[in-house]
Amino acid sequence: MLSDIQISRQTQITPIADIAAQMGLHPNEFRCYGTTRAKVDLTALARVAKQPRGKMVLVTAITPTPFGEGKTVTSIGLTQALHQLGKRVCACLRQPSMGPVFGIKGGAAGGGNAQIVPMEELNLHLTGDIHAVSAAHNLAAAAIDARVHHEQRLGAEEFTRQSGLAALHIDPQHIVWNRVMDHNDRALRSIRIGLGNNGPERQSSFDITAASELMAVLALSQDLADMRRRLGQLLLAFDVNGVPITAEQLGVAGAMAAILREAIEPTLMQTINGAPCLIHTGPFANIAHGNSSVIADEIALGLNDIVVTEGGFGSDMGFEKFCNIKARASGIHPDCVVLVATLKALKSHAGVAASEIHYPNIDALAQGMSNLNWHIANVKKYGLPVVVAINRFPDDTESELQWLTEQALAAGADAVELSLAFAHGADGATDLAAAVVACLQQPANFTHLYSTELGLLNSLQQLATRGYGASAIELSAQAEQQLAQIVALGADHLPICMAKTQMSVSHDPRLKGAPTDFVLPIVGLKLNAGAGFVTAFAGNIMTMPGLGVKPGYLKLDIDENGDIQGF
Amino acid sequence: MLSDIQISRQTQITPIADIAAQMGLHPNEFRCYGTTRAKVDLTALARVAKQPRGKMVLVTAITPTPFGEGKTVTSIGLTQALHQLGKRVCACLRQPSMGPVFGIKGGAAGGGNAQIVPMEELNLHLTGDIHAVSAAHNLAAAAIDARVHHEQRLGAEEFTRQSGLAALHIDPQHIVWNRVMDHNDRALRSIRIGLGNNGPERQSSFDITAASELMAVLALSQDLADMRRRLGQLLLAFDVNGVPITAEQLGVAGAMAAILREAIEPTLMQTINGAPCLIHTGPFANIAHGNSSVIADEIALGLNDIVVTEGGFGSDMGFEKFCNIKARASGIHPDCVVLVATLKALKSHAGVAASEIHYPNIDALAQGMSNLNWHIANVKKYGLPVVVAINRFPDDTESELQWLTEQALAAGADAVELSLAFAHGADGATDLAAAVVACLQQPANFTHLYSTELGLLNSLQQLATRGYGASAIELSAQAEQQLAQIVALGADHLPICMAKTQMSVSHDPRLKGAPTDFVLPIVGLKLNAGAGFVTAFAGNIMTMPGLGVKPGYLKLDIDENGDIQGF
Repeated sequence: MLSDIQISRQTQITPIADIAAQMGLHPNEFRCYGTTRAKVDLTALARVAKQPRGKMVLVTAITPTPFGEGKTVTSIGLTQALHQLGKRVCACLRQPSMGPVFGIKGGAAGGGNAQIVPMEELNLHLTGDIHAVSAAHNLAAAAIDARVHHEQRLGAEEFTRQSGLAALHIDPQHIVWNRVMDHNDRALRSIRIGLGNNGPERQSSFDITAASELMAVLALSQDLADMRRRLGQLLLAFDVNGVPITAEQLGVAGAMAAILREAIEPTLMQTINGAPCLIHTGPFANIAHGNSSVIADEIALGLNDIVVTEGGFGSDMGFEKFCNIKARASGIHPDCVVLVATLKALKSHAGVAASEIHYPNIDALAQGMSNLNWHIANVKKYGLPVVVAINRFPDDTESELQWLTEQALAAGADAVELSLAFAHGADGATDLAAAVVACLQQPANFTHLYSTELGLLNSLQQLATRGYGASAIELSAQAEQQLAQIVALGADHLPICMAKTQMSVSHDPRLKGAPTDFVLPIVGLKLNAGAGFVTAFAGNIMTMPGLGVKPGYLKLDIDENGDIQGF
Repeated sequence: MLSDIQISRQTQITPIADIAAQMGLHPNEFRCYGTTRAKVDLTALARVAKQPRGKMVLVTAITPTPFGEGKTVTSIGLTQALHQLGKRVCACLRQPSMGPVFGIKGGAAGGGNAQIVPMEELNLHLTGDIHAVSAAHNLAAAAIDARVHHEQRLGAEEFTRQSGLAALHIDPQHIVWNRVMDHNDRALRSIRIGLGNNGPERQSSFDITAASELMAVLALSQDLADMRRRLGQLLLAFDVNGVPITAEQLGVAGAMAAILREAIEPTLMQTINGAPCLIHTGPFANIAHGNSSVIADEIALGLNDIVVTEGGFGSDMGFEKFCNIKARASGIHPDCVVLVATLKALKSHAGVAASEIHYPNIDALAQGMSNLNWHIANVKKYGLPVVVAINRFPDDTESELQWLTEQALAAGADAVELSLAFAHGADGATDLAAAVVACLQQPANFTHLYSTELGLLNSLQQLATRGYGASAIELSAQAEQQLAQIVALGADHLPICMAKTQMSVSHDPRLKGAPTDFVLPIVGLKLNAGAGFVTAFAGNIMTMPGLGVKPGYLKLDIDENGDIQGF
């Protein structure tokens, strides 16, 4: 089989202006970036808000394993199949971060015959939105340190005389706004900045841009005015009296909005068979809220009968955050959930070694089923129908696939279908598409997992026990203190964005399958006043990945024609 | 008068595809980014290389003062006037760095009625090239630290077993590749990275992206293959035996090329009156080589009779580096030089205070003339004709302008003309345009200032004495050592990129006018093997600016229509 980039480059790409027109965008509602990408103007958002909305299909997965479950391949394959069946369908996906592209994954545009094309444009820069998030984020960071520097250097009175601004008296040891970079850069996880005469000297760090609160702001904003308001609310630091300092007070929120002016517009691309796809924002689902943007969903739902989106990682991660964070911000909930699993991944949950994973092993499958069952039950907690998609690999046996299908149905799945989208594109996902269409006939009885009315502590307990199956939560002393502060700031009724490992439904990556009897540790809480959620840290969660011993960048190059190779 | 952004927004902008066609680009040689920006494909470069080249006009200025001389306004006004006169003309300019945009200047797209439009697109992101430079640069930085981390953690043998790569044994205290950011961020000037278990722990810093060697590589490359070759040659670090480690050896040069794949294509925009302008790369002229790209020049010269470009800061900076670095890389030299001066700036060189600068003062002007005379003579050293453009301000008196014109002619200027481009656009620069056209009738006798054949020390001495008027140079012990190392590496015959203050023709910003009898200190030398020059540091030169007490970002915002305001 050809490589992903070879397949992408062989594809007959439809001019993006034609894709936009077919989707129902008016000529003045998009701007082409070459013939393969288009920015969708927010005037389209205002227009389609008045139209009846299509149905939302959310693709999620079992708990990830090192083998890869193929969730994005399934999302794109499903979109391709629905498009081939003549449905008005659009995919809404996140823009890949360059960190993992160069670090581990190679690319994140689907794969095989289920791809967004051109895949190298999606994986590198696209229309620059992630760069804009980094730039806006780091302007605020530079502004904070510069303000402290000048106020300390000049004294409050002289500072005010020279600048015409009131002194803010920011406490340099209480700045809560890091810097960001869209790379896997371990060396920036823990740094000391402002050395020499460039103070304040202080401990700090870089996060990966996907974890920036600005990425969440961009993803959760309903329109430009909402984004501007959220930017003003960003909590950057505390002053020497413990009073919060916002981006509005620092005078930097307007410039951040100017930097993000084009990034708030979704980018239109296409699948291999010419179905439209809106790419917008890129929050990770472990350290952020893991879903593409509200604005892209709104536009897509206003112009299509079916929208396919995905939540990052397993259903305890991106799906949960879609239901409890994004659905609250947008009022849009899934109508049907597709849950991706593979034979290999289920065996991996049973502890089968990589070298043995290809062999038939019903016992291991039966043990690993606990994880699939957990995720089926998890989706059901939200009142939603669930279609299990078994992403079939060439060496999967019929008997195991048959067994898995029966077991998943018995566990409560509304349907179970094989997907061969990687190998066969749209043709490989027609059964899955038909099952999804059937599910969408029934009304969903969506419910959030927890009410935010009862306060943050209750929300945390509900999410941990009913959401993950923990027996209880345990707050560290620091988290207790932060909880008290958040309550004092009147931000007690925001939803939770749990930062936790994606490798287990618990906080402990070693607990595979469907762990029970664990206590979820909450070691820190962070108010994201602009995004509108409180991040809870279930253990020491890394917000800046690192490059491995054999990183993905080694394979990439340009050839003599200037074409990118190595994806 | 309207603000710059108001004038820009009032402009009737021609669809960029029409500008491209008028310029002579074929339909398959450019990709539109909306209707106002287009990326020029490198197939155009290959085609026009066979055509006769037009003439190159380089706009430079006297030594900068806090009053602003209006060099970019003059460059754009001259382009507009030549276009209005019916000449086939194109401007080639640098992309503004966002650091100064948010720090001090507001914008850098010209001003008044001499602008590149839409000015906010030029000032923010444009087509993302500077972001691409940051991303490629920082990937290499992350790759270096990650390699040291894993080799130290695992030991050489185990590292090789796991990765399949030979150990490089990089000396963590001898890494010569910083990180970069396109902001004025003082707190990142001196930092300590790799704390905790994320080592190697070491002293490091961020430079502004305009100072990245990658920016110079992009600006000096002749085509994609040349860029790829230069990327491989980038000197990143030394191993524990003092042997240089290149980007090729680290295996990161290919990925950097992939990241820069679109950034190597110039971006086409237009002036207020519809003249084409290629925007490409953005090296500062004090800490870098200060000129837009070779590729943009080649394309523009192949399609036009006249190309207007500018070198950053005074003629001792960007102009000198054009003649001694860029002209060597490209074979393209200026045919005519425009030297911008103002009455206010010359008085400022005489020490007149800001509060007094508006009053007629022939004595001060006579004293400040020494600086203008210095720059006229400097251009003449290169065998080039020079037209002095007096950027006229509303309160300038006729008698002073008349006096200045006579003095400049007496000092050797080939012509002296007033420019009123800020107030009147093309109409304000027709006399200047006519004088430039007249100058271009005569052949230029271009010569480099120094021969690189005689080695780096000779080049430094020539540049300091003949170039700046110093009596001698003085190398620090460190510079002596670095010189020996560069000689040992066989890189002794590269041209020099002097990092020095732009506020004096000497190294000392306090020495105004035409200083003599100074010794130029060289405190450091850095081999830029990819860019193909050696950076010499004349004193402790800051490569990361800082935000001031009242930074430019305070004014910026979006309005209720989403339009950017505050430029």
